[in-house]
Amino acid sequence: MGRVSIRDIAAATGYSPATVSNVLNKKGNVGAKASSIILDAVQRMGYHRANQLERVIFAVARVTGRIVDVSPFHPGVYAGIERGAKAFSLKASMTTLDLTNPSTRKDAVAELAQNANAGVILLATEMISDDEYALFEGFDLPLVVLDGWSDKLALDCVTIANEPAAYRATTLLAEKGHERIGYVGSRIRIKNFPQRERGFRHVLEDMCLPFDEKNRILVDPSPEQGYLELCAWLDDNPPLPTAFFCDNDLVAAALIRALNAHGIRVPDDVSVMGFDDEQLCQVIQPTLSTVHVPRHKMGEMAVRRLFEQTTDIRLAPCITMLHTTIVQRQSIKRI
Amino acid sequence: MGRVSIRDIAAATGYSPATVSNVLNKKGNVGAKASSIILDAVQRMGYHRANQLERVIFAVARVTGRIVDVSPFHPGVYAGIERGAKAFSLKASMTTLDLTNPSTRKDAVAELAQNANAGVILLATEMISDDEYALFEGFDLPLVVLDGWSDKLALDCVTIANEPAAYRATTLLAEKGHERIGYVGSRIRIKNFPQRERGFRHVLEDMCLPFDEKNRILVDPSPEQGYLELCAWLDDNPPLPTAFFCDNDLVAAALIRALNAHGIRVPDDVSVMGFDDEQLCQVIQPTLSTVHVPRHKMGEMAVRRLFEQTTDIRLAPCITMLHTTIVQRQSIKRI
Repeated sequence: MGRVSIRDIAAATGYSPATVSNVLNKKGNVGAKASSIILDAVQRMGYHRANQLERVIFAVARVTGRIVDVSPFHPGVYAGIERGAKAFSLKASMTTLDLTNPSTRKDAVAELAQNANAGVILLATEMISDDEYALFEGFDLPLVVLDGWSDKLALDCVTIANEPAAYRATTLLAEKGHERIGYVGSRIRIKNFPQRERGFRHVLEDMCLPFDEKNRILVDPSPEQGYLELCAWLDDNPPLPTAFFCDNDLVAAALIRALNAHGIRVPDDVSVMGFDDEQLCQVIQPTLSTVHVPRHKMGEMAVRRLFEQTTDIRLAPCITMLHTTIVQRQSIKRI
Repeated sequence: MGRVSIRDIAAATGYSPATVSNVLNKKGNVGAKASSIILDAVQRMGYHRANQLERVIFAVARVTGRIVDVSPFHPGVYAGIERGAKAFSLKASMTTLDLTNPSTRKDAVAELAQNANAGVILLATEMISDDEYALFEGFDLPLVVLDGWSDKLALDCVTIANEPAAYRATTLLAEKGHERIGYVGSRIRIKNFPQRERGFRHVLEDMCLPFDEKNRILVDPSPEQGYLELCAWLDDNPPLPTAFFCDNDLVAAALIRALNAHGIRVPDDVSVMGFDDEQLCQVIQPTLSTVHVPRHKMGEMAVRRLFEQTTDIRLAPCITMLHTTIVQRQSIKRI
């Protein structure tokens, strides 16, 4: 007998080639018993996919462009992907996947799937709706979704452990004596942000700290527009909390700038906590305390998952959430 | 130079041995720059831990005993641990970690940490409070938490992707035409259950289905007591939804029994969805549609993470959430 094919496995187990293919592609719609029988045959008969993984394509999905085009997040991830690819002797490249136009995005995904012997790491930061994830149902190449996830599809995903991160960042503020803590977020609610807000609120509940919903401010994610909106809010002289937790560093920086412009000193009058540990944290005055996101490690982990998808037939699809660390700089004060 | 020690790395990098130790033990309280310098030195100088991983201890944490003592969940996980351990040439054993008594539990954890050359996979199903997780802060052995997680501590955890699982299970009910869906849960709210409820409610919101809070019933998790409570609820002749999503198979089975005792037929009058795919699903009448939890794969994944902790110094701690599959049996009907 020559190379074992999907048809050979179908013949040996009594299932259809389509069912065998669904199991091999981890479609998740085959019963546990059938899956087990097929996987046993796969191992016993020594089946290997014809499509060997030779290269990793980092596809940056642009839906609005509002987040990915301005964020220095994905270059860091890509550096990790390159390092991970090297460790597995794979080539790496980066491309943009344009999902801005609903009438052409199906074709864009189909074109991406044409890359022979490739696996795709999809940067899903801007992918919020189920419709966008549905484009990848039945995607033909090995796939790992990065910085996003779907509740509907059992996709392999690598994300940040947002809720624990926000929990620990907010706990730090509380431990420094802050009892009235506000929340400044982005009005564009990418999937990370509600999770961060959940971790934030969880601390207030656990510590029985009150939360005044007036101190929950959502602004435009761009630095200039966010700054103007925060200035407009401060113009009304609202009673301020002693600290703010922010969705990300950009809105935190806009907040610090707006506070400074109103003669409110950071951290003497108000403490500010960011999220992401972008380079700007070390540049602004005062330097910004924040949550360090392990971008390199996210990229490395995504490559590892991609590689294991193609080599370990029994691997379970899963969502991998990487833990973060807190970086203390000048923007937070004990009161 | 002989074997490289922590002191050698401290001398070469200028950091204290304590800081080097914190980085090696992934304590997460060392800055990103210092961590990077130390890890570079570790790789360059060829440091290896003295404590080699030789065996895996599966420690079943008993807090109340109400869940782990009656559930057939952990034998399945342990079978996966044994398989995973074999693949990495490790020995495996199982033990109970008694956390029922607050005055002796610290000693119990310390005793567990005495096992030389061992790594611990901790079954945390019953560990709900931060106090219980805090017992493992600074735990001396490699550790992976299974079926639980902490928002406070950056522990390596392997869990079920509960929210996506409940989302897909509830979507199936909705797709079968059910518009009024109830929720039957366990009164003991282990960490999985609120996440499952969140996935359940998420579908109702997405599909604009109303939810009558009277159809959210929490009962004792034991089959007999749960059955009696559900009977008492049904005695009041409440207006019933056409389907129920249940926290787990045990309460689903209690519900089916109570419905049967009241002359309400499953699935002709009411459809029922369980969660866990315990063996009882194939035994009761009608057989129970449910969510299959990949217990073997959870065990295998936990061993893999434990192994990587001790061999891959750059590994990021993370929460790994395994995807599930839905098993359709007789308890659900299209209406």
